[in-house]
Amino acid sequence: MTAHENERQRNREEELVATVLAAFDATPDPRTREVVLALVRHLHAFLREVRPTEAEWMRGIEFLTAVGHWSDERRSEFILLSDVLGASMQTITVNNPAAGDATEATVLGPFFNEGAPEIPLGGDIAVGDEHGRPLWVEGTVTDTTGAPVPGARLDVWEADGEGLYDMQHPDGRMSTRGWLRADDEGRYRFWAIMPLNYPVPDDGPVGDLLRASGRTPMRASHLHFLVSAPGHRTLITHIFVKGDPGLPTDAVFGVRESLIKDFVDQDASVATPDGRDLDGRPWTRTRFDIVLAPDQ
Amino acid sequence: MTAHENERQRNREEELVATVLAAFDATPDPRTREVVLALVRHLHAFLREVRPTEAEWMRGIEFLTAVGHWSDERRSEFILLSDVLGASMQTITVNNPAAGDATEATVLGPFFNEGAPEIPLGGDIAVGDEHGRPLWVEGTVTDTTGAPVPGARLDVWEADGEGLYDMQHPDGRMSTRGWLRADDEGRYRFWAIMPLNYPVPDDGPVGDLLRASGRTPMRASHLHFLVSAPGHRTLITHIFVKGDPGLPTDAVFGVRESLIKDFVDQDASVATPDGRDLDGRPWTRTRFDIVLAPDQ
Repeated sequence: MTAHENERQRNREEELVATVLAAFDATPDPRTREVVLALVRHLHAFLREVRPTEAEWMRGIEFLTAVGHWSDERRSEFILLSDVLGASMQTITVNNPAAGDATEATVLGPFFNEGAPEIPLGGDIAVGDEHGRPLWVEGTVTDTTGAPVPGARLDVWEADGEGLYDMQHPDGRMSTRGWLRADDEGRYRFWAIMPLNYPVPDDGPVGDLLRASGRTPMRASHLHFLVSAPGHRTLITHIFVKGDPGLPTDAVFGVRESLIKDFVDQDASVATPDGRDLDGRPWTRTRFDIVLAPDQ
Repeated sequence: MTAHENERQRNREEELVATVLAAFDATPDPRTREVVLALVRHLHAFLREVRPTEAEWMRGIEFLTAVGHWSDERRSEFILLSDVLGASMQTITVNNPAAGDATEATVLGPFFNEGAPEIPLGGDIAVGDEHGRPLWVEGTVTDTTGAPVPGARLDVWEADGEGLYDMQHPDGRMSTRGWLRADDEGRYRFWAIMPLNYPVPDDGPVGDLLRASGRTPMRASHLHFLVSAPGHRTLITHIFVKGDPGLPTDAVFGVRESLIKDFVDQDASVATPDGRDLDGRPWTRTRFDIVLAPDQ
């Protein structure tokens, strides 16, 4: 290619971008206009950098079509794609700006259930789970000035002792989830089970992408929290287990250094904090002090 | 937000991008690695710029899912989405770099048919089309040195006199398409019909996007060419009709200034170039001199 041809080629590519931007410029809704204009700029920048062959572009089209076909009421392969590209986590990040020492947010995941049962302070979200190792979780809910947030609501949920969420079982059970309120001094405590590693669904096109990239579908083991109180930004987050070998390769990039906690194993002989009798089973304890950002 | 919070927030967003890039860095196939790393960079740049709310991001997920659900063997809503974002045209553009005065390429579209019939030089691709206005098309096929390309193959196709491609009719017909060869001096000529404006399918989510953006689904009227000859880059292009009011708003951004041609109307009394008797119908003529780039 001569320098002149190079310049003409660059002009053609840039003129095309300008033409597409001009076509969307009259979008009446200002936010839709802003989003679609940014989409066009970034999409064309990607294409001009990667310079896909037409066969590659068709493979991209076919991949997206397959992701769409795998998506239904029970499974959103597009959310999963967003997750494994870190797009879900980036969306969480931009919507939870740093505010003092407020606890960092992470992904909600597909397994939250608004209809979970209330449990008392110190109650057990995993009653009767024979496979899970008992886990005592305690901490405080404060605001960014350090003042307690009395009565803050904590929704907590996790995979069961088999590594499955209740809604992944076909029998319609509700288990290893519940909600409770912090006490008048913002303190909370409950029993759960030690979280396990489990894979995101990898039998679809997103699984193919993970395999093609040499990545694991496994999530770092974690316990979900959704913490809300009037006047405060609702916090959706996890805590992770220090020492879990899956931490650096979490499939959905949910791990934040500040969310990795000590989970301290206890012999069966050690008395439980609330005097509960664990029938001679060993147990684990962890602490998660939660700081809520002010509402905006 | 304090300056310190701003900096922490920026760090969080940038660290997330770095983590995602690191996760894909071990992709074994070099080209897949290059594409997926670029995708991550541009996708996160888009998200960090647009800063979608979680509800907006979900609307995006739902839009892409709907595009997937509308796609089947007969209709690719994802190709259509690529088309109306100018992505298909940008892919064409990067794959057809400027080469001397080689004719510019444009989109193939969904209506090419490899099995179209051969017609003789001067033949008619629209035999029996009662609605269309006869169109005489002639020109030359040369290379970028100006030398003729004898025997170049020209595939030509267009919507019929009702504004529909043959495959859009349910009866399985084959019409308004054919292929011919240039003569020993690279000259070609054939009869077709005046192309009409027609809409891209706009009853799906891509139609919703066009409406939300105040854009038209109409394509500028055009005649398709696919021109091939050994030793030359295969050219996929259109010619457009000078004066067509649809030129500036072509739904798929296929128009190139250099592809807009004079279509000169002729009274019924004007003799046809090949002496054909048009039964007293008026007709139109145009000229398209084609320059093929060398093969690479």
